[in-house]
Amino acid sequence: MDGVEILGLVAATFTTGAFVPQVYKTWKEKSTKDISLTMYTILLLGALMWAVYGFSIQSLPIIIANLATAVLLLIMIILKIKY
Amino acid sequence: MDGVEILGLVAATFTTGAFVPQVYKTWKEKSTKDISLTMYTILLLGALMWAVYGFSIQSLPIIIANLATAVLLLIMIILKIKY
Repeated sequence: MDGVEILGLVAATFTTGAFVPQVYKTWKEKSTKDISLTMYTILLLGALMWAVYGFSIQSLPIIIANLATAVLLLIMIILKIKY
Repeated sequence: MDGVEILGLVAATFTTGAFVPQVYKTWKEKSTKDISLTMYTILLLGALMWAVYGFSIQSLPIIIANLATAVLLLIMIILKIKY
């Protein structure tokens, strides 16, 4: 694995992991007034398309990162609808 | 441009454009209580890393999509600090 691949994996870890503190905050505070449902819905569709793209170019990191992001986004959408 | 490239561009448009409704909502309502600053900070770092990655593999769509996302994320961070 070269430096560029490592950079891509670290970037993927950041852009996926970033949603964990938001899910935790929302889970804890049970308040979603300021959260845009439209943002999370479009982002979920985008992440699923990235996963299909990753499947097409046979890139496991793109598939895994985007499916993991999709799960976190789906949790946020459920929390937004619930609270 | 083949189907896979088009899918990637549509996916990039979704994952970047998704932040526009959140920026608009926050700009209009001037309330950011439920927004995680940690999420937006990590996401901004991730997007900047993706842009450097795009530069390394000479992918203009990755560079443009992530720099545009970075600008939207930076606006959200400023709005979060301000309100």
